[in-house]
Amino acid sequence: MSSTATADRVGVWLIGARGSVATTAVAGCAAMAAGLHPPTGMATETPAFAGAGLPALSALVFGGHDVVECPLPKRAEQLAAGGVLPHDLPLAVRAELLAADAEIRPGGPHPGDTRTDEDLITAFTSDLLDFLRRRGLTRAVVVNVASTEPAPASAPSDAAGPLPPGAGSGPAREPGESAEPPAPGEPPVPGEPSVPGEPGEPGRGAASGAEAGAGGRLPASSLYAAAALRAGCSYVNFTPSTGLHHPALARLAASGGLPHAGRDGKTGQTLLRSVLGPMFAHRALVVRAWSGTNLLGGGDGAALADPRAAAAKNAGKERVLADTLGAVPEGEVHIDDVPALGDWKTAWDHIAFEGFLGTRMTLQTTWQGCDSALAAPLVLDLARLLSRAHERGLTGPRPELAFYFKDPDPGAPSGLADQYAALVAFAARLRERGE
Amino acid sequence: MSSTATADRVGVWLIGARGSVATTAVAGCAAMAAGLHPPTGMATETPAFAGAGLPALSALVFGGHDVVECPLPKRAEQLAAGGVLPHDLPLAVRAELLAADAEIRPGGPHPGDTRTDEDLITAFTSDLLDFLRRRGLTRAVVVNVASTEPAPASAPSDAAGPLPPGAGSGPAREPGESAEPPAPGEPPVPGEPSVPGEPGEPGRGAASGAEAGAGGRLPASSLYAAAALRAGCSYVNFTPSTGLHHPALARLAASGGLPHAGRDGKTGQTLLRSVLGPMFAHRALVVRAWSGTNLLGGGDGAALADPRAAAAKNAGKERVLADTLGAVPEGEVHIDDVPALGDWKTAWDHIAFEGFLGTRMTLQTTWQGCDSALAAPLVLDLARLLSRAHERGLTGPRPELAFYFKDPDPGAPSGLADQYAALVAFAARLRERGE
Amino acid sequence: MSSTATADRVGVWLIGARGSVATTAVAGCAAMAAGLHPPTGMATETPAFAGAGLPALSALVFGGHDVVECPLPKRAEQLAAGGVLPHDLPLAVRAELLAADAEIRPGGPHPGDTRTDEDLITAFTSDLLDFLRRRGLTRAVVVNVASTEPAPASAPSDAAGPLPPGAGSGPAREPGESAEPPAPGEPPVPGEPSVPGEPGEPGRGAASGAEAGAGGRLPASSLYAAAALRAGCSYVNFTPSTGLHHPALARLAASGGLPHAGRDGKTGQTLLRSVLGPMFAHRALVVRAWSGTNLLGGGDGAALADPRAAAAKNAGKERVLADTLGAVPEGEVHIDDVPALGDWKTAWDHIAFEGFLGTRMTLQTTWQGCDSALAAPLVLDLARLLSRAHERGLTGPRPELAFYFKDPDPGAPSGLADQYAALVAFAARLRERGE
Amino acid sequence: MSSTATADRVGVWLIGARGSVATTAVAGCAAMAAGLHPPTGMATETPAFAGAGLPALSALVFGGHDVVECPLPKRAEQLAAGGVLPHDLPLAVRAELLAADAEIRPGGPHPGDTRTDEDLITAFTSDLLDFLRRRGLTRAVVVNVASTEPAPASAPSDAAGPLPPGAGSGPAREPGESAEPPAPGEPPVPGEPSVPGEPGEPGRGAASGAEAGAGGRLPASSLYAAAALRAGCSYVNFTPSTGLHHPALARLAASGGLPHAGRDGKTGQTLLRSVLGPMFAHRALVVRAWSGTNLLGGGDGAALADPRAAAAKNAGKERVLADTLGAVPEGEVHIDDVPALGDWKTAWDHIAFEGFLGTRMTLQTTWQGCDSALAAPLVLDLARLLSRAHERGLTGPRPELAFYFKDPDPGAPSGLADQYAALVAFAARLRERGE
Repeated sequence: MSSTATADRVGVWLIGARGSVATTAVAGCAAMAAGLHPPTGMATETPAFAGAGLPALSALVFGGHDVVECPLPKRAEQLAAGGVLPHDLPLAVRAELLAADAEIRPGGPHPGDTRTDEDLITAFTSDLLDFLRRRGLTRAVVVNVASTEPAPASAPSDAAGPLPPGAGSGPAREPGESAEPPAPGEPPVPGEPSVPGEPGEPGRGAASGAEAGAGGRLPASSLYAAAALRAGCSYVNFTPSTGLHHPALARLAASGGLPHAGRDGKTGQTLLRSVLGPMFAHRALVVRAWSGTNLLGGGDGAALADPRAAAAKNAGKERVLADTLGAVPEGEVHIDDVPALGDWKTAWDHIAFEGFLGTRMTLQTTWQGCDSALAAPLVLDLARLLSRAHERGLTGPRPELAFYFKDPDPGAPSGLADQYAALVAFAARLRERGE
Repeated sequence: MSSTATADRVGVWLIGARGSVATTAVAGCAAMAAGLHPPTGMATETPAFAGAGLPALSALVFGGHDVVECPLPKRAEQLAAGGVLPHDLPLAVRAELLAADAEIRPGGPHPGDTRTDEDLITAFTSDLLDFLRRRGLTRAVVVNVASTEPAPASAPSDAAGPLPPGAGSGPAREPGESAEPPAPGEPPVPGEPSVPGEPGEPGRGAASGAEAGAGGRLPASSLYAAAALRAGCSYVNFTPSTGLHHPALARLAASGGLPHAGRDGKTGQTLLRSVLGPMFAHRALVVRAWSGTNLLGGGDGAALADPRAAAAKNAGKERVLADTLGAVPEGEVHIDDVPALGDWKTAWDHIAFEGFLGTRMTLQTTWQGCDSALAAPLVLDLARLLSRAHERGLTGPRPELAFYFKDPDPGAPSGLADQYAALVAFAARLRERGE
Repeated sequence: MSSTATADRVGVWLIGARGSVATTAVAGCAAMAAGLHPPTGMATETPAFAGAGLPALSALVFGGHDVVECPLPKRAEQLAAGGVLPHDLPLAVRAELLAADAEIRPGGPHPGDTRTDEDLITAFTSDLLDFLRRRGLTRAVVVNVASTEPAPASAPSDAAGPLPPGAGSGPAREPGESAEPPAPGEPPVPGEPSVPGEPGEPGRGAASGAEAGAGGRLPASSLYAAAALRAGCSYVNFTPSTGLHHPALARLAASGGLPHAGRDGKTGQTLLRSVLGPMFAHRALVVRAWSGTNLLGGGDGAALADPRAAAAKNAGKERVLADTLGAVPEGEVHIDDVPALGDWKTAWDHIAFEGFLGTRMTLQTTWQGCDSALAAPLVLDLARLLSRAHERGLTGPRPELAFYFKDPDPGAPSGLADQYAALVAFAARLRERGE
Repeated sequence: MSSTATADRVGVWLIGARGSVATTAVAGCAAMAAGLHPPTGMATETPAFAGAGLPALSALVFGGHDVVECPLPKRAEQLAAGGVLPHDLPLAVRAELLAADAEIRPGGPHPGDTRTDEDLITAFTSDLLDFLRRRGLTRAVVVNVASTEPAPASAPSDAAGPLPPGAGSGPAREPGESAEPPAPGEPPVPGEPSVPGEPGEPGRGAASGAEAGAGGRLPASSLYAAAALRAGCSYVNFTPSTGLHHPALARLAASGGLPHAGRDGKTGQTLLRSVLGPMFAHRALVVRAWSGTNLLGGGDGAALADPRAAAAKNAGKERVLADTLGAVPEGEVHIDDVPALGDWKTAWDHIAFEGFLGTRMTLQTTWQGCDSALAAPLVLDLARLLSRAHERGLTGPRPELAFYFKDPDPGAPSGLADQYAALVAFAARLRERGE
C-alpha cells in the first residue's frame, strides 16, 4: 500500500530529534519499512490512502535539531526499557538509528547563547540546506516535536488561549487558497528548493528588527519555523508552541509558497473529546461541565508542570470543546507531572450532562496510553502528506489535516468524523492527475 | 422551531404505553409543549430541522396498548420518586397523562389467551382505527417501546445474533426503494388510512396459517407491527424484539406503502460505541478486546435477566462494533439486573487496543444515565420524523434514521457522525417542495 | 438502641448553622427521632454502641451561629430540590427546623465589623450561655461545620500543611490524659457549666492582646472555639479551619477541663484512603504515586476554589497517606469548583503502585457521594459521643475519635480499622460504671 | 531481615509447577536471594516478621508436579515477553530455574489415565519423599497453584458455593486446636517425616474405596493434598479447588499432625473487597449492590471460562462480602476470558450504597494488576510461615493466615486489617521460645 510513483527520497527533519516522539518515529519507520511490524496507527497505510502518491516509508530520510546529545540508539534503549518500544527493536534498527543520529545538528538558543535571532535562523537554514544537498533529497518536511514552550508572556490575557498577538488573523492564518504563490501551478523545481526570506532581502527576514520588534527574541519554535520556510521545506507544528503562529512570520508564511500545518497533535484526551463533543451536540444533550485530569511522567510531564506550558496545551483541549459543543462548559483541565508513570499517560475525563427534562447524567473516560506511541505514527502520516502536498504545489495552511491537530488551521471542521472525511478527500485530491 | 405548516394532529400509539419510556415521553412532550422545560435531548428541535415540516409537539396525540393497568399519572409519580421525572411534573401535566391514559387499550396475548394471532391482529387494528377516527387524526405512528422479547427460540444458533429465520434477507429487509407499493407516488389519503393486509384477503394476512407456518404464534411484537400496517400507520421498533423483522410479515411490509424504521434504540453504551468505534478505525488503531458490563434495575433489568432477551440486546451492540471496526473484537457484554439502581443504568466498557509497534493501551468508559430519559426524546423525534415521511409519501424501511438505532435498516452508515449527516440530509428531503 | 440512662436534653450548637451539613443534620435527626428513616450512616446507632449512655437523638436540641439569614426550612427545601434530602422531608420536619432556626444567632465578624476579638468571643459566649439557660440544657457541644477558612497566612510555609505556628506541639495538642483540669475526676456540675477563660481574668483570655499578639485577629473559627470553652461546652472541629489549633488558645484548651475533638471530617476520598493506604502497606506493595481530583459544586466547591482553603483541605488528605504508607508518594490533589454538580461530589483517585519484582500496577477509585449526607451523621455521632465524654468527665483532645477525622488528635492510629477499634473501645469506656 | 536460626533447607513443592505463579515465585525468590530485586510484595520481609524464625529465601528449594512439559526457563521467557517478569531476569536466574525444573515430576491424572486414586496418591507421595531425601530437606510445604478445578459436580446446588458435600463441617474443618494429633507437642522428627495414611492401613487411605465412595474419583487437587500429608508435608491450597476440603480426606487431615492453610489466594478484587466491606460496615452505610467484572487472559482466563470453575472462584469473592457486610448484597461477578490481556487482569467493581436518609451513592474501583506478580510473593510468604509453623509443631488449619485467602479456615476474622493483626500475632507466636 505504500507504493509510490517515484523513488524520490524525502527528508523528515525533526525539531526535538532526540525526544521520545522523534526516536519512536525513526525506529518505528525503520521497523515497518523492514516488515518487522504492521503499520498500526498509521492512517496513511490504510486503503483510503492507496494511490495518493505518498512517499514510501522506506523513502524517508531522517535528521533534525536538538539541544541534547544522547545518541538515538541510547534513547531507543531507554524507551524500550520503559515499555514504549518493543524490547528487541533498538538492536534490530540500530543502523537506521545511527544514520538518523548522524544527521542531528545542535539546536538553540542554549542558555547564554549570544547569537541573534537572525544568526540562529541562518544557522538552522544552513543545516537544512546541507541535509538536502548531501542526502540528495527532493524535498523535506520540518516537524516540530520539541517540548512545549511556555505560552508567550506578551500574549493578551484572552480567554481564547495562548495565541500570540495577531495570530488569530492576518495572512498567516488565511486558508491555503489565499496563500497561493504568485505563479500558482508552478511547483518548486525538484532538487532546487526555493528559499524564501533570503536574509539579504529587505523586509522579508522572519526575525528582522522591524518585525520581531523591540519586544525581544522570537520563541525558539518560531526560529526553526522561519528556517524551514527559508530552506524551502514544508512545515508541521506538532506542538502547541508558537512556531509559524507569530506575527513576525506572517509575511514569510504567506509568501513562501510552501504548505504548512498545525498545531498541537491530537493524541489522546483531545482525540476522545473530538468524538464525544459532537455526540453530545448531535443528540442535543447539554454538557454542563467537562473536567479532566492528565497524569504523565517523562519529559512531557516535567515540561507541562510549568503552568504556562500547561496553559498552552489546555487551550487546544478547550478549543475542541468550544468548537464541537458551541460553548465552553464548566470544568478545568489539570496536567500533573507524575514521574512514576514514565512515558505512559492516564487521562480521566468527567462529563456532567443534562438530558430530557433536565435529568442529570455523567460520562467518565479513562484513557491509558503511551504518548510517544500515539504521536509517532501521526508524525509520519503528516510528513508523508505534507511532502506530497508540497510536490503537488499546494501551499499555505492545510485545514484538511485537522484530523491530526487540537488547534487546526482555520476553516477546518471540528468533529473527528468530519475531519476524517476532509482528510480522505484531501488524499483524493493528492491523487488527482497522478504523477 | 416546532412550527408546522398545518395544524393537523398526529397520533403516537405506543406499544408498552404504561412503561417508563412511554410515560416519560408523554409527560415530557406535554411539559415541552407547555414551555415548562426546554427540549433537551431532541435533535428535531435543533436548527438543523427547522422547516422540515415536522408535526409540532403540541400536535401529538398519545394512545397505545399495554398489558398492565397502572394509570399513567401513578406511573409518572413512581418515576418522579425515582428521580427520572422532575418531582413536580406529574402534577403539572396530569391532564395530559389522563388524556393519554384514556386511550390505552389492553394488549395481548396474556397468559392463557385463546385468541389466534389473527384474532389479536384484528383486535389491535380495530383499536388503532378507532383511535384515529375518534380523535380525528390525520395519521398515526405506532412505536414499540415494550419490554424486550426473548430472541425467537426457533432462530438458528448463529453467531450473528437473534435474527429470526430469514430475517437477514428477503424483501422485508430490502431498502425502502424496493419496497414501494404497487402504485408509487400515491400517498395514503389523509384521514382515510389504507388498510393493507385485510384479513379476508388470501395470502396477505401477516399471520395467516400459510405464512406463520406450523411453528406456532408470531411474537407479540410482530402482531402489533402487523396491526400497525393494516391500520395504515407508520411503524417504529424501538426495541430489539422481532416486530416487522419476521418473514411472515415480509410481504405486508413490502406492499404496505408505509414507512417504517428500526430497530433497537441507541441510547447509551451503544451510542458511545458508535462514536468510539470509528475513532479507532480512522486512526488505524487495532481494537483487541471490547468488554462491557451494564447494570440496570427497573423493568428493563428484570426483562434482560432472561439470557435470551439479553442476547437480543447484545446482538445490536456487537453489530455496531462489527460495522465500525470491520471485525468483532474479543470481549463479552453483560447485562445485570440490579434492582437497587432503579431506572438508572451504569455501563462500563473496557477497550484494549494496540497502537504503533503493538503498544498496548486501554480506554475505559463509565456511562451513568437514565434510560427512560435517554429514550423518550428519541421516541418523540422518531414519531415526528416518520409521521412527516408518511405525509411526504415515503415508504419502506428508512435507513436515514440509523442515528437512532443499534440495528438500523440496511444501507445505513455505521458511525454516528455519518448517521447524523444522513439524518440532516433526510430532514432536508422532508423539507423539499414544502407543503 | 438510642435509649439513654437519663432524659437530659443536650445542646448541639452548630457554627455554620444554616449550611448544608447543619441543615441535613437537624432535619435528619428529627426524621430519625420520628421514625421516618432508619439511622443509616450513624455508627452510634449500631449494636457496638448500645448501652454507652449516649444521649438519645430525641434529646438533642439544636442552635448555632451563622452569618447568613436564609431560614432553615427554606434551606431544607433547597437541599431537597438538589436531591440531598428526601423530597417530602422538609415538610415532615418543618416544626423541628423552625425550632432550630429560632436558636440561630448572628455570627461574625462580618465585613466592616469593628468589634474586637474579645468583643466577639464575649458575644458568642453569651449566646451559648443564653441557649443553655433558656432551653434548660444539661450541657452542649459546639460543632464547627462552617465553610473552610483559608490556611493562616502567617503559617510557616512548611510541607506539613496548614498548621499554625506551634499548633503541632504544646499543651493544646497533648493527649487527653495530660490535659486534665487541676481537679480531675470532678466533672462540671450539670446545669452549671464551668466558664473558663473569664474575660476579666488576666492572661487567660483566648484572644487577649498578650496572646493573640500584634499579628492581628484570630481566625473566626478560633473565636467560636474560645467561646465554646468559655461557655463550658465541649467542642468539635469538623472542618480543616484553625479552631482550637491556635497557639493563643493553647492555655485555654489545656485548662478548660472540657473534651474536644477534631479536625476535618473524613467523609469520602480520605475515608477511602484510610482503608486503602493500610492495604498497600500491609501487603508490602510500594505506592509510587497517588493522585486525586475532586469535583464538587455547592458552597464547598466555591470555598475551596480559594487555593489557600484547598491547601488546608489537602493537608489532611496527605496526612492520611503519610501516616498509613510511611511516606508521601508522588501525586497532587485537585479540588475543582463545578457548580453543575451541586452538593454532589465526584472524587477520582489514581494510585500507581509496584508489586513483586517491580511490576507496575494501578488502582483507580471513583467515589460519587453527597457530602452533606456523608457528613451529617458523623456530626450527630460526634455530638453524642463528646457530650457523653463530657458527662463522664473526660477532658482534652480525644484521639479515640480519629475514626471521624482526616487530621485527628495526636496519638491516634492512622488506619480506619484501627480507628474503629479505638472508637469501639472508647464506647466501652463511656459505658463503664454506668450512670 | 530474613535471617534464620538454622541453615536448614526447606522444600517448596508446587502443584502446577510450570504455571505462571510458580514460575514467578521461583524466579523471584532467586532474584531476591541474589539481591537483584527488593522484596516488594512480601509481608514476611517487613520488620513485623523479623526474628520469627522463618526460613531464609535462600534456603528454599523448589520442586513440584505438573502435567505440562515446557521447561521453566522457557516459561520465564514467555512471562518476560508479556511484561510479567523483568526482561533480563530469566537469564539472570537461569541456573535456579533449571534446578527447579529438574525437580518437577509428571502430575496426573492425564486423559486416559488408568491408575486408581490410590495409585496416584502413592506415586505423588513417592515423588515427595524422594525430593526430601535426595535434597536433604528438613521439611517441605506443598502449595497448590494449579489451575482452578471446576466445582464438584456432585456438590449440592446450594447458594453457599462450591463446597463439596460435608466440607463445611466435620473434623477436617475444625480449627487447629481440635486437630492436634494423638501425641501433641511431639513434632515430626526432622529429616524423618511422618507418613500418615499408609496405604496398607485399613480405613486411613485418603482415597480408599470406603471413603471416596461410589461417587468416583477424588478431584486431582485432593489427590495431591492427600499425598502431601502422607509424605509429612504441610499443605497450602492457594486455589479455590477442593484440596483437603473433601470429606474423604477429613480423617487424614485431622490425624496428620501437620499444619495446613487455605483456600484461594486473595490477590486483587477480593483483597480490595476485604478492606472496602469493613469500611461500609463500620460507617453504617448500607451496601445495596456490589457488582464486579473481571477481565483476564492467560491460563486463568481460559480456565475460568468454564462456568463451574468461575463459580468456585466467585464463591470466595461473595464470602468476603457476606462476612464483612453481614449480608450478601445484590450484584453479580463476571469472569471473562480476554486473551488479549495476557497475564494482566482488570477488575471493575461497582458498589451502590445508601447513606444518611437513604441518599444513594456509588463507589467504583478499577484494579489493573498482574495476577502472577500479586500471587507469587504470597506463595513465598505462606511457604515460609507454614514451614515455620510445622517446625514449631503447630498442626491443623491455620486461620491466622486468613490475610492471604478469600476463603480462610474457620475462625478467622473477615476484614483485612483484623486479618493482618492476626497474622502479626501469629508471627509473634512463631517467635516465642526461639529455637
